[in-house]
Amino acid sequence: MGKLYVVGIGPGGIEHMSLRAKEVVEKSDIIVGYNKYIDMIKSIVKDKEIYSNGMKGEEERCREALKLSKEKNVALISTGDSGIYGMAGLILELRGNEEVEIIPGITASSAAASILGAPLMHDNCNISLSDLMTDYEDIKKRVKLAAEGDFIISLYNPKSKGRPHYLKEAIEIIKEFRGENTPVGVVKNALREGQEYWITTLKDFIDEEVNMFSIVIIGNSKSFIKDGFFITPRGYKLEK
Amino acid sequence: MGKLYVVGIGPGGIEHMSLRAKEVVEKSDIIVGYNKYIDMIKSIVKDKEIYSNGMKGEEERCREALKLSKEKNVALISTGDSGIYGMAGLILELRGNEEVEIIPGITASSAAASILGAPLMHDNCNISLSDLMTDYEDIKKRVKLAAEGDFIISLYNPKSKGRPHYLKEAIEIIKEFRGENTPVGVVKNALREGQEYWITTLKDFIDEEVNMFSIVIIGNSKSFIKDGFFITPRGYKLEK
Ligand SMILES: C[S@@+](CC[C@H](N)C(=O)[O-])C[C@H]1O[C@@H](n2cnc3c(N)ncnc32)[C@H](O)[C@@H]1O
Ligand SMILES: C[S@@+](CC[C@H](N)C(=O)[O-])C[C@H]1O[C@@H](n2cnc3c(N)ncnc32)[C@H](O)[C@@H]1O
Repeated sequence: MGKLYVVGIGPGGIEHMSLRAKEVVEKSDIIVGYNKYIDMIKSIVKDKEIYSNGMKGEEERCREALKLSKEKNVALISTGDSGIYGMAGLILELRGNEEVEIIPGITASSAAASILGAPLMHDNCNISLSDLMTDYEDIKKRVKLAAEGDFIISLYNPKSKGRPHYLKEAIEIIKEFRGENTPVGVVKNALREGQEYWITTLKDFIDEEVNMFSIVIIGNSKSFIKDGFFITPRGYKLEK
Repeated sequence: MGKLYVVGIGPGGIEHMSLRAKEVVEKSDIIVGYNKYIDMIKSIVKDKEIYSNGMKGEEERCREALKLSKEKNVALISTGDSGIYGMAGLILELRGNEEVEIIPGITASSAAASILGAPLMHDNCNISLSDLMTDYEDIKKRVKLAAEGDFIISLYNPKSKGRPHYLKEAIEIIKEFRGENTPVGVVKNALREGQEYWITTLKDFIDEEVNMFSIVIIGNSKSFIKDGFFITPRGYKLEK
């Protein structure tokens, strides 16, 4: 009898994996995941059996991982946290009597925040702009309510070719509720090869350079920029 | 010249720290943090200089960490992610010309989710019920808008002696927008000594056993319980 580990590897670089995630990958017999993610941790998976397929085959990949785990120890890999827009949910939906353990990881919003400064210090939300599985009208409603509630907003899947204008529209909705100087941070490939980032404001935000390897964080009404850092105050009354 | 590392150690157990967080703690000369958090990682900090004080001295602790870092390498420790209700923001607010690096960690909502199943698979938010630095009216407004937006809601700081009824009131607000069978998960001391958890529904939720070492996660309108797991579907149309 094997076991299925659903592993969040964190943002990408090995050094941001948890000790537990690394150990589980190292002791598994088979690694299942999207090629690009397996590549990120290739230094610890070499010599292992790999089951990998393209972007769209998520259900097939999960079914295969469950099947393989009846015989052997299998690590199914997601980036970030496997429980946030990752594979944990689908595995538990499809699971029969296989033994499954979910190993959490550092999600993209935390990784990106650490590079920008401290944007997520107060109440915050994660919204995916992908309409593959959610109605665009529902997405826009969520963005509006989050803006109204003064949440710091992290936009996952901010842009792809099939929906080039969603990000711009989300920013327009947020502008109805927040000042034009509200900080906006973009991080591409946070804490992994190819990292880039910039900090701007709602007024000056341009979506051109944003792609699907990026995350966009919009501050709340109290966020500010200081010495190049994007900071949301927790609310301490500081002695001057 | 030293450097200040603001380190999120994850939920508590060493095995859920990132490799980078562990390495930074090990190579720092001085560890600064709340006693209870330093205790959690005592196996890797023994023999180090420790600067620790009680719960309330957060500003003082941050100022001291900054001062010490002028001479030596200092690791200032938060649980979870240092950038989510942690110390990263205050450090960057108080920072002069000290060199500071923020090291992200696995936040409590991700840790708790991995134990409950996969509750956070869709758009979700973190709300703190602590009114130490936020008006209770603002907190209630946020809970209402998050409920209206069908966000999965993670309640940090859900209960303390000074505000025993906030959690109950938050649940009542959420009930106005979600069905009574919506899953609710409580995790106490996620992924560290003393872990306990249970899964219930909005209808049957009792706040009695919840304390300040707990986090409470409320599902969205599509969340369900299956085989003891709390699952929010991502929205895949599954082949039966
Ligand atoms: C399907 S979601 C997966 C999220 C992942 N499970 C997590 O918890 O971070 C993919 C989106 O996550 C974001 N993302 C994941 N890793 C990232 C990184 N290292 N830097 C920036 N964004 C990232 C991007 O917005 C990307 O479009
Ligand atoms: C001041 S906040 C610190 C949050 C932390 N920086 C993080 O990212 O997880 C303290 C609250 O976090 C939650 N918390 C932190 N660690 C936890 C754990 N291991 N299990 C359950 N809740 C936890 C509890 O709600 C607690 O009241």
